[in-house]
Amino acid sequence: MLGASSTPAQVRAYVREHPVRSTAGLARGFMQANLLAVPQRHAFDFLLFAQRNPKPCPIVGVLEAGQYSSPLLPGGDIRTDVPGYRVFAEGQLVAEPADALAHWREDLVGFLIGCSFTFETALADNGIALAHIEQGRNVPMYRTNIATERAGIFGGPMVVSMRPIPAAQVADAVRVTSRYPQVHGAPVHVGNPEEIGIGDVSQPDFGEAVDIPAGHIPVFWACGVTPQAVVMDSCPELAITHQPGKMLVTDARDVDYQVP
Amino acid sequence: MLGASSTPAQVRAYVREHPVRSTAGLARGFMQANLLAVPQRHAFDFLLFAQRNPKPCPIVGVLEAGQYSSPLLPGGDIRTDVPGYRVFAEGQLVAEPADALAHWREDLVGFLIGCSFTFETALADNGIALAHIEQGRNVPMYRTNIATERAGIFGGPMVVSMRPIPAAQVADAVRVTSRYPQVHGAPVHVGNPEEIGIGDVSQPDFGEAVDIPAGHIPVFWACGVTPQAVVMDSCPELAITHQPGKMLVTDARDVDYQVP
Repeated sequence: MLGASSTPAQVRAYVREHPVRSTAGLARGFMQANLLAVPQRHAFDFLLFAQRNPKPCPIVGVLEAGQYSSPLLPGGDIRTDVPGYRVFAEGQLVAEPADALAHWREDLVGFLIGCSFTFETALADNGIALAHIEQGRNVPMYRTNIATERAGIFGGPMVVSMRPIPAAQVADAVRVTSRYPQVHGAPVHVGNPEEIGIGDVSQPDFGEAVDIPAGHIPVFWACGVTPQAVVMDSCPELAITHQPGKMLVTDARDVDYQVP
Repeated sequence: MLGASSTPAQVRAYVREHPVRSTAGLARGFMQANLLAVPQRHAFDFLLFAQRNPKPCPIVGVLEAGQYSSPLLPGGDIRTDVPGYRVFAEGQLVAEPADALAHWREDLVGFLIGCSFTFETALADNGIALAHIEQGRNVPMYRTNIATERAGIFGGPMVVSMRPIPAAQVADAVRVTSRYPQVHGAPVHVGNPEEIGIGDVSQPDFGEAVDIPAGHIPVFWACGVTPQAVVMDSCPELAITHQPGKMLVTDARDVDYQVP
């Protein structure tokens, strides 16, 4: 059985063979990553897009064309070790396979992008309860009217994740997450969802809705699902991503991404 | 006359026409940047090199091929607004012109890299005196035996800058600089220079030697001159850089690079 004390290698080996609902809470203390793979000819554009949009797209590792493993996943394989994949052709979702072997190409460059699960551990350690975990749901994510900065073919809206935070703890939540600039860092918005183009907070574009308890304020962080929204808008010939909430569990430690 | 209260635009306009010894201390509060420009066909490799080596090569901006200005230097031109340039052909230094107009090519991609001048302001604000400034010299920089992580054609030794710090303030210097991960962050080494391959601290490879006062410990930070050492080792057909200490003064504010 997988759990908080599983090693990253154990999680990767398990999800290679079995479905899981989400990797949240598994291999506690180790960094989980979003995946985006695009053909080599778009790789500079995407790496530049990430450099220009570090809050939604903090790059924590790059697997060059033909490379399937790295020190972030020793003995692993990015084509099989994510619990679920999405395949986009010309921006259209065409498949959601359990492994990406049948869709992978030799010229794909794989980008691993930091995930907010890292700072959620830090929030919990600082006494800030997370509603989606208490309610047993995936975190809700939304397309916003916040534009990313374009690079080459890549551009589109920023996706954010939302966590309801008690008013008295909003400042703590900002302080704690700002210490993790490589995993989305401080929030991009606090309060009124409409100001960032979210019409109905109970209808997330990705993940699951959560109830906002009385006295809580919705707080929004840049989200590593942004590349998927950008792929839908930018239409590269092929892109392979993880399914939201089903992350690549790496051997990097959360604490390595903490400053100061 | 240029000084701490000059605006970035004033500094850029002045150095376009006049030589200066160094940009240290000019336009206080604004970020200064290292420059490396390489042909487009090497741009992905270099951006990946920077992603893999964020301490020596924190990218703060990228000017794509044919682009000479950006919001970091409104109205400016990267071909003229650095006080002094270096031109490398196949890894060999072939010219040190006052402007780069005669050497620039349409296919060059310009990378702006964070500079330790940003955290020096923060060190001074925190009561930590800087020996090279008190002694009226450029900061000493050294090639080390610390290898960078390779990407494509780019690889080579890390270059570090050294500042003597009073033993009682070493912890403060670490704490303060670690809040600036995009401008080299925390030191890479504290103490014995020989351990990182520096045989004689009085003979820097770049910049000028400083005297180490009694009771001070040499502290070493990753340095934005690293790309120049890497170019010398990696031999791209053409590379254009700033001259060490003569930086591009940008309109970005130092405080924008501070976490948390």
